[in-house]
Amino acid sequence: MTTLGELAQRFGLTLSGDPARQVSGLSTLVEAGPQDLTFLSNRKYLAALDDTRAAAVILQPEFAARCPVDSLHTDDPYLAFARLTALFDRAPLPAAGIDPRAVVDPSAEVDASASIGAGAVVEAGARIGPRTVVGANCHVGADCRLGPGTRLYPGVVLYHDVHLGEDCTVHSGAVLGADGFGFAPGPQGWEKIHQLGGVRIGDRVEIGAGTTIDRGALGHTVIADGVIIDNQVMIAHNCRIGKNTAIAGCVGLAGSTIIGENCTLAGGVGVVGHVELCDGVHVTGMTMVTRSITQPGSYSSGTPMEPTRQWRRNAVRFSQLERLNQRFADLEKTRHN
Amino acid sequence: MTTLGELAQRFGLTLSGDPARQVSGLSTLVEAGPQDLTFLSNRKYLAALDDTRAAAVILQPEFAARCPVDSLHTDDPYLAFARLTALFDRAPLPAAGIDPRAVVDPSAEVDASASIGAGAVVEAGARIGPRTVVGANCHVGADCRLGPGTRLYPGVVLYHDVHLGEDCTVHSGAVLGADGFGFAPGPQGWEKIHQLGGVRIGDRVEIGAGTTIDRGALGHTVIADGVIIDNQVMIAHNCRIGKNTAIAGCVGLAGSTIIGENCTLAGGVGVVGHVELCDGVHVTGMTMVTRSITQPGSYSSGTPMEPTRQWRRNAVRFSQLERLNQRFADLEKTRHN
Amino acid sequence: MTTLGELAQRFGLTLSGDPARQVSGLSTLVEAGPQDLTFLSNRKYLAALDDTRAAAVILQPEFAARCPVDSLHTDDPYLAFARLTALFDRAPLPAAGIDPRAVVDPSAEVDASASIGAGAVVEAGARIGPRTVVGANCHVGADCRLGPGTRLYPGVVLYHDVHLGEDCTVHSGAVLGADGFGFAPGPQGWEKIHQLGGVRIGDRVEIGAGTTIDRGALGHTVIADGVIIDNQVMIAHNCRIGKNTAIAGCVGLAGSTIIGENCTLAGGVGVVGHVELCDGVHVTGMTMVTRSITQPGSYSSGTPMEPTRQWRRNAVRFSQLERLNQRFADLEKTRHN
Repeated sequence: MTTLGELAQRFGLTLSGDPARQVSGLSTLVEAGPQDLTFLSNRKYLAALDDTRAAAVILQPEFAARCPVDSLHTDDPYLAFARLTALFDRAPLPAAGIDPRAVVDPSAEVDASASIGAGAVVEAGARIGPRTVVGANCHVGADCRLGPGTRLYPGVVLYHDVHLGEDCTVHSGAVLGADGFGFAPGPQGWEKIHQLGGVRIGDRVEIGAGTTIDRGALGHTVIADGVIIDNQVMIAHNCRIGKNTAIAGCVGLAGSTIIGENCTLAGGVGVVGHVELCDGVHVTGMTMVTRSITQPGSYSSGTPMEPTRQWRRNAVRFSQLERLNQRFADLEKTRHN
Repeated sequence: MTTLGELAQRFGLTLSGDPARQVSGLSTLVEAGPQDLTFLSNRKYLAALDDTRAAAVILQPEFAARCPVDSLHTDDPYLAFARLTALFDRAPLPAAGIDPRAVVDPSAEVDASASIGAGAVVEAGARIGPRTVVGANCHVGADCRLGPGTRLYPGVVLYHDVHLGEDCTVHSGAVLGADGFGFAPGPQGWEKIHQLGGVRIGDRVEIGAGTTIDRGALGHTVIADGVIIDNQVMIAHNCRIGKNTAIAGCVGLAGSTIIGENCTLAGGVGVVGHVELCDGVHVTGMTMVTRSITQPGSYSSGTPMEPTRQWRRNAVRFSQLERLNQRFADLEKTRHN
Repeated sequence: MTTLGELAQRFGLTLSGDPARQVSGLSTLVEAGPQDLTFLSNRKYLAALDDTRAAAVILQPEFAARCPVDSLHTDDPYLAFARLTALFDRAPLPAAGIDPRAVVDPSAEVDASASIGAGAVVEAGARIGPRTVVGANCHVGADCRLGPGTRLYPGVVLYHDVHLGEDCTVHSGAVLGADGFGFAPGPQGWEKIHQLGGVRIGDRVEIGAGTTIDRGALGHTVIADGVIIDNQVMIAHNCRIGKNTAIAGCVGLAGSTIIGENCTLAGGVGVVGHVELCDGVHVTGMTMVTRSITQPGSYSSGTPMEPTRQWRRNAVRFSQLERLNQRFADLEKTRHN
């Protein structure tokens, strides 16, 4: 429970309305009740503004006159909303200290303000920083380093020699530092290439549930500061991801792929190995990236969804395209003769 | 070990043969031995019926005359087979009670008939219903609710405020309630939008191994009764899945996607955010769904598999389609002049 | 720390240089320092050879003259490098014995030289072979068998009746033996088909992080000797994978799919159910395999990546291909008249 006046002051917003009005939650324009705060960040929801029953709306000053209830003004309502969510988050934070059912190697260094959950295992030589949280049943391998304020949710596995910087978040089921997929063909079959590198992750990196980031074969796999990674993303050995790049769910990067800064890869994108994407590249969903990209911009592949019966006919024609093209070239020639 | 007579009575089948004949297992028409029961659900396996060595075959009455061994008649042999599998399942069921190596918060309510496995952690305020099974090393977050008869296999993670109804099954490695992928661009990079909603799952829902269902940003992520979800499916924040919909492996749904009732999404389908699929939509494997669907029916995208050499030529022509189309239009004009 | 002389002898390489020269690590041609060993396996890196500062280079005899430092000769430098990596791997190996915080059923047989980590659970009737490692917080279901030298990294889950042969490696987050996705449509919705088969995995199989291999419905799901499987691969019930086949990350195989020997499936490939790929099939990344393949060779599907604006125009034309084709046929007819 807080008041509009407190929120305005704390988040640098301009209040138009009653500073004593109380808000107890955040909601959407449509669903907000009389104790909820909401926001308008996209002109296409303007109609919903007229009918909102919210306590107050965060919006751009230009829409204040139209707002039927109190409002908080800012040039970037979505950013203000993002920051406000922290206030209303009721997710429990584990208490500091090592749970008696955790298993911490005597040679590991754990800051007194860190939290190690029940069933967690911390191996030899690991260093856990201040305010860092290692959730229940996590595994922190030998010589790992977790910076201040980093949080591993329950069931995360770090193999040995994985470093995470400050204020990172790793969601449950993520596995960092498993072996890269390296094998040489031998006379009897595949022979394993032991993966000798580690994983190096910067500050303020978020890693989604079930995501896997493999260790490097010789050098490290590297994720720069501010990178955000969604669930079930696969990052192979020796990839390097640049600052503030965003990677959506189910993306797969093959080995030694380099992604620049401020890129976005939408859901289900696949990138072949040993290619490089420059800064500022945006790849749309499920695109197959088979070569390096040297110009910023948006890239795509695939075909549009259609009713299956119709799609089948077009798809058959796809496999005749080269032939069609030749028949067409023949016909053009005829015309010109 | 049971007899044909008992099976006929218990499952409402009509027996043609010896009620005292014993069966000890289930198998396919081809592999069944003289103590196995089998079934014929598809006319294309009729030839195999002639040679079967099974103890008995479940089949439609019209095929009884052709069956060389005893038979059990029903209009839906596949459904009868499905129900019979329960009899022959030797999967061990954990004993009721809280394992002494589980960690249960004193404020959690655990029914006396529930089973909490070794290493499982149950957080404050959670409620575990009758006959519910929480497998070894699972994590049940604060204020979660698990209805009667629901089973979490070992290593499932529920974050706080995740509700599951009755008779749900969640397979190992699944993560329910991790943060949705919500960030606002700020002056220094991405700023996290705390995910304030929960996850609400109905009755008789099955969730596959390694599947992730994120919590909602403001409202909840909602899965209706009777939904079945395969392995490694990714369901983003605020999705809503309608009753009895089936989602096969490796499907990815982006945020706020709404899927109707009785839909089927085949393996590897991807759906962009903020679209809605009406009831009765079927999407074929690996289709990229980029818009809402308002008519029931089957939908597809992609191109057919070909030998790589041939595919390469056609694929190049795909990227010249717009140009080809213009050249063609020019040629048509010429003809008409 | 070892010497070139020792390496030459141990790995059957011919040394050109100082047998007493010491090497302490492995690195790439470009990054290797004066105590590192490196290798040249691909002619395209010849330029880097000229400038290498490595202690020595493993290479084919024909390039020895060009090498500015000591060299070790072999016909297959990449294979020699692969074998050498084992020497330099600093990954810690857990000590033999059952950790006091593991939970092992009295009826399970655990070899004295095996290692069972903290928080691991080994169920009734399981058999764990010599030198086998069950990592922390793993779950080994009832009647599982793990052959000699097999290693489960922390957090792996095996359901009941899963067999692994000798010298297998299973990475964290993998789930073997979860229920296949089998349901029959019933009057009230989906009815579960209990999955009665198990999982049978041969020798020297590697299974990546987060990979799921479901148990069979009636018979077993079978993975042959020498198969290597990357991260987040989904193998459905009753699949059979032939010897030495390699499956890259994010591949999905639907139920009852049969893959031959010595195949390679690149990242993100999807294969529909009930099809069969013969030996020696190679499928390129993200291909959708919708039918059986009876000839060895390389297969592909999809469209090439383009700038989004350009792609959109071509994609629209894809959905008009059948129409274009008919218009073209009409025009051809006109010409011939």
